[in-house]
Amino acid sequence: MSKAFELPVKPQKDEIKERLRVRRDEIFAKQMTIKEKKLPVLIVVEGWGTSGKGTLISNIIKDIDPRFFKVCNIEARTEEQKRYPFLKKYFDLIPEQGKISLLDGGWMSELTRMKLNDDIHASEYERYVKSIKIFERQLVEDGYLLIKLFIHISKKDQKKRIDELLDDKNTKWRISKHDIEQNKHYDDHLDAFKSFIDETDAAYAPWYVIDGSSENWAQLQALDVISEALDTAFTNSNINFPVLQNSFPLAKMQKLSDIELYNKTISEKDYDKKLDMLQERLSELHYELYRKKIPVVIAYEGWDAAGKGGNIKRITAALDPRGYEVHPIASPEPHEKARHFLWRFWTRLPKDGHIAIFDRTWYGRVMVERIEGFCSENDWKRAYNEINEFEKELVDWGAVVIKFWVQIDKETQLTRFTDRQNTPEKQWKITDEDWRNREKWDQYETAIDEMIKKTSTEYAPWHVLESVDKKYARVKALEIVIDSIERKLK
Amino acid sequence: MSKAFELPVKPQKDEIKERLRVRRDEIFAKQMTIKEKKLPVLIVVEGWGTSGKGTLISNIIKDIDPRFFKVCNIEARTEEQKRYPFLKKYFDLIPEQGKISLLDGGWMSELTRMKLNDDIHASEYERYVKSIKIFERQLVEDGYLLIKLFIHISKKDQKKRIDELLDDKNTKWRISKHDIEQNKHYDDHLDAFKSFIDETDAAYAPWYVIDGSSENWAQLQALDVISEALDTAFTNSNINFPVLQNSFPLAKMQKLSDIELYNKTISEKDYDKKLDMLQERLSELHYELYRKKIPVVIAYEGWDAAGKGGNIKRITAALDPRGYEVHPIASPEPHEKARHFLWRFWTRLPKDGHIAIFDRTWYGRVMVERIEGFCSENDWKRAYNEINEFEKELVDWGAVVIKFWVQIDKETQLTRFTDRQNTPEKQWKITDEDWRNREKWDQYETAIDEMIKKTSTEYAPWHVLESVDKKYARVKALEIVIDSIERKLK
Repeated sequence: MSKAFELPVKPQKDEIKERLRVRRDEIFAKQMTIKEKKLPVLIVVEGWGTSGKGTLISNIIKDIDPRFFKVCNIEARTEEQKRYPFLKKYFDLIPEQGKISLLDGGWMSELTRMKLNDDIHASEYERYVKSIKIFERQLVEDGYLLIKLFIHISKKDQKKRIDELLDDKNTKWRISKHDIEQNKHYDDHLDAFKSFIDETDAAYAPWYVIDGSSENWAQLQALDVISEALDTAFTNSNINFPVLQNSFPLAKMQKLSDIELYNKTISEKDYDKKLDMLQERLSELHYELYRKKIPVVIAYEGWDAAGKGGNIKRITAALDPRGYEVHPIASPEPHEKARHFLWRFWTRLPKDGHIAIFDRTWYGRVMVERIEGFCSENDWKRAYNEINEFEKELVDWGAVVIKFWVQIDKETQLTRFTDRQNTPEKQWKITDEDWRNREKWDQYETAIDEMIKKTSTEYAPWHVLESVDKKYARVKALEIVIDSIERKLK
Repeated sequence: MSKAFELPVKPQKDEIKERLRVRRDEIFAKQMTIKEKKLPVLIVVEGWGTSGKGTLISNIIKDIDPRFFKVCNIEARTEEQKRYPFLKKYFDLIPEQGKISLLDGGWMSELTRMKLNDDIHASEYERYVKSIKIFERQLVEDGYLLIKLFIHISKKDQKKRIDELLDDKNTKWRISKHDIEQNKHYDDHLDAFKSFIDETDAAYAPWYVIDGSSENWAQLQALDVISEALDTAFTNSNINFPVLQNSFPLAKMQKLSDIELYNKTISEKDYDKKLDMLQERLSELHYELYRKKIPVVIAYEGWDAAGKGGNIKRITAALDPRGYEVHPIASPEPHEKARHFLWRFWTRLPKDGHIAIFDRTWYGRVMVERIEGFCSENDWKRAYNEINEFEKELVDWGAVVIKFWVQIDKETQLTRFTDRQNTPEKQWKITDEDWRNREKWDQYETAIDEMIKKTSTEYAPWHVLESVDKKYARVKALEIVIDSIERKLK
C-alpha cells in the first residue's frame, strides 16, 4: 500500500478563520500588483474526485475582479482536440501578462487517467511527462508564475463524500462513474498521482499537496501558497531569473522588533542551578547520540556582541571533545569563493553520531553578502531556496538541525561595544568593521527578518535567543538543544 | 525487453578522423577561455562496464594543461563516507571556477547499483534522485557547466569485450564480478539506466548518450558535446541565467556566405516540365496525408524580396484548399506579445492530416526581435533551445516539419528593391522598413548563421533555397516537400 502524503498540521478552527481573513485581504490587495507588474499567473488545481476542486476555485476568486481572471474547466479531450499535439490544449489556455488563469483539473488528471486506463503505452506516458516538464519550464523561464495545487483526501473520506452525495437526489448527478472507480482503486490512483508529482516537481514549479479534509482549511492552505508565491514573484520581477518558489512548509515567526527582550532574565542562583543540571543532561545525551549514530548540526547567527561565543561555550562545556567540532566561519577563502557557496559547509558536515557547531553559517549569503554586495541579487534571492533544500538534505539524512538567532537591541550593542573599547583585555574583540556594520543596523534588520521568515521551515525552524541577559540566553539554548535531541531519540 | 537508446549515425572512418582533429584543436584553444571566463566545468562520464570510460577520459584530457583539470575515479563508498549524507561525496568534488573536474563514474552508477542490488528501498531511491536533481540544479544556477555523458554498448558487444579481456592474463584483472553480472542481467541494468536518465534529464543538465562501439567514434561524440556545450556557456557567461545546453543532435550546416548562388539555375523549359510533374505528385501526396492523418508544418524564412511569396504559391497551387492554411506572420498583436512567444504558433498548428505553411515564423525571436531589441538577451539566447523543443514536440506528435531559408545575396536584393520601387504595380511590396532592414544586412547575417547552426536538428533541419533564380528555388522546394512527405509515408 502507498504511503500517504505528508500534510501540514491543521490549526484550530478560530485560528483558521482569522488567518483566512488576513489572507483574503492580502489576495485582494495583490490583484492590483499582478496587473501593475504584468505578471501572468497560472494556477492549476488538481485533486481527488469530490475533494472540492470547484469549491476551492470559487473561494480563491471570490474577491478578485472578474476582469483579472479566467476559470477553465478541463473537460475530456474532444475528438477535435485529439487531432492536435497533446500540449496544444494547455498552451492555448495560458494567461496573458497581468492576468490569472485557474484550471479546474489539468494535464495531471488527464495523463494519470490515461495511464491507469491503459490508454497509452508506458513509453508514451514518459514522453508526455517530458513534454509537460518542458512546457512548465518554458513558461516559468518566460516569467510566468505557475502554481500547482493537489487536494488530497483519504480513501475513507472520499467514500463518505461519495455516499453522501449519492444519497441526495439533488447532488447525485455530481458523482461520476470515474469517482466511484477511483475510490475502489484508491491505492492505484494514489500511486499514479504520487509518481506524477515526483516526476514533475521542480523548484520553479513545485507541487503543493493540500489537506482537503475541510473546506476552510483547504482554502487557507491554498491562499497561503498563492499569497507567498505572489510575493516571491513580485520581489523577483526585477531579476532576470526564473522564480523559484519555496515549497517547504514554514513556521510562523515574529519580526525582530516585536520580540520582547527585557523581561527575559534569570537570577544568578537559578542560572547556576539550571546550568549544572542542563549540562549534565546534555552530556548524557551526547553519548546516546554517539551510540545511535545521530548527527547534530547547530547553527549560530546573531548581532555582533550578542554573546554567541559565550553561549557556544556553555554547550561545548557539556560535550565530549572527541564528538564535536566548532567551526568559526569567516569570509570565504579564495578556493571557497571559487565554488558554490554551500561547498564550504558541505565539506564541514559532522559524521553520524557527531555534533558540528557553526559560529556564523551559510546564512552569511543572505546577510553580509547581500548587504555588502559580495554576491549578485540573483545569488542571494535564490539562496533562501538553496538553504532550505540544504537543510532538508540534512534532516532527511537523519540529522538534528538547530538554528539560533542571538538577539539584542541596538542600545545593548552600544553598551557592549563601548565596554569592549574601554577594557584593555576585551579590545581584541572590537574592530572598525563592527562599528561599520552597526551603522547598517536597519539594513541588516530588514535582511534578517526576511531570512527568518523565509527559512523557518517546520523541519529546521529558527530559535530566537533573547540575549540582553546572556545567562537567560544560555539556559534557553541548552534547553532547546536538549529538547530537540530528546525528540529525535524518542 | 528494453528498447535501446537512440544513437547518432556513425560517419565514415576518415570523416571521424578529420572531425576529431578539428575538435581536438578546439578543445585545446578553449581551455584558456575556461580559465579567462572563470567557468567551472564538471564532466561526468558514466556507462556500461568495459564501455571505455577510462579511455575516453584519457582521450579528452590528452591536450589539456594538467593544471586545469582533475580526474576523480569514483570508487565504492568507504565506511567513513557512509557516515555522511549521500551528496557530500559529490559536493566535495565540485571544481573551482576556471577548472575542469572529470568523474569516472558518479552518482548514477552508485544509485542504480544500489537499486539493482536492493540495497535501498524504492522510496529511498526516489529521495536520492530528488537530491541529485537539486544538486545539479544548484550547480548550474551558480554558473557551473555540467556535462553528463553515458557510453552505451550493446549486450553482445559487452560480452565480446569481457571475453577478450578475460582471455588475456594481462588484462584479466580489469574484469570485475560486477561486469559479468551486468552482462548477464543486461536488460535489468538497461532499464535502470534508462529510468535514471529519464528522471534526471533537464535542459540545464541533459544526458548525452554516446555510441561506444568504437574508441575514435566515442571520442568524437564526446568532444562534439563538450565543445558545443563550452560555446554555449561562453556566450551565455554575460547573462544571468542558467546555461541551457542543446541536447538535440544537430546536422552540419554551411554558413550563408559559403553558399554558391549563381550556378543554381534552371531553364524555362525544364522549369515548366518539372513544375507540372512535381505539383501533380504533391497533389496526390496531399490526399494520402489526409487519409493517414499526418500533419505537415512548413516554415518559410528568408531575406526581404528573396521570393518567399512566389515560392509558397507554387506549393499551395498543388494543394486542396480544404486541407491547408497559410499563416502570414507579422509582428505580434498586443494579446500575443503578452504571452509566451510560442503561444501564437501553438494556436496556429494544423490538425492531423492538414498542412500549415508559415510565411515567417517563430524564428522571428532570434532574428528581428534579437536585432531590434524587442526581447531581452536572455530571451533570444534561451529561444534556440525552446524552438528545438517545440519542433521536437511536433515531430514526436507525428508531424513532418520542413524549414526553408530562402537565400539571395545583397546585390540581388538591391536589384529587386529598385525594380519594386520603379514599377507602380509592385510599389506596395516595398516599404521604408525594408530599406532599414537592408542596412542591417551584416547583423542579420550573423544572427541567421547562428540560428541555422543551432536549430538544424536532425529531426527538423533547415533547407536553404538558393533563390537568385526564383524558379530554381521553387522546384527545389517542391522536391524537398515531396521527398520529406514520401519518407514519412514509407
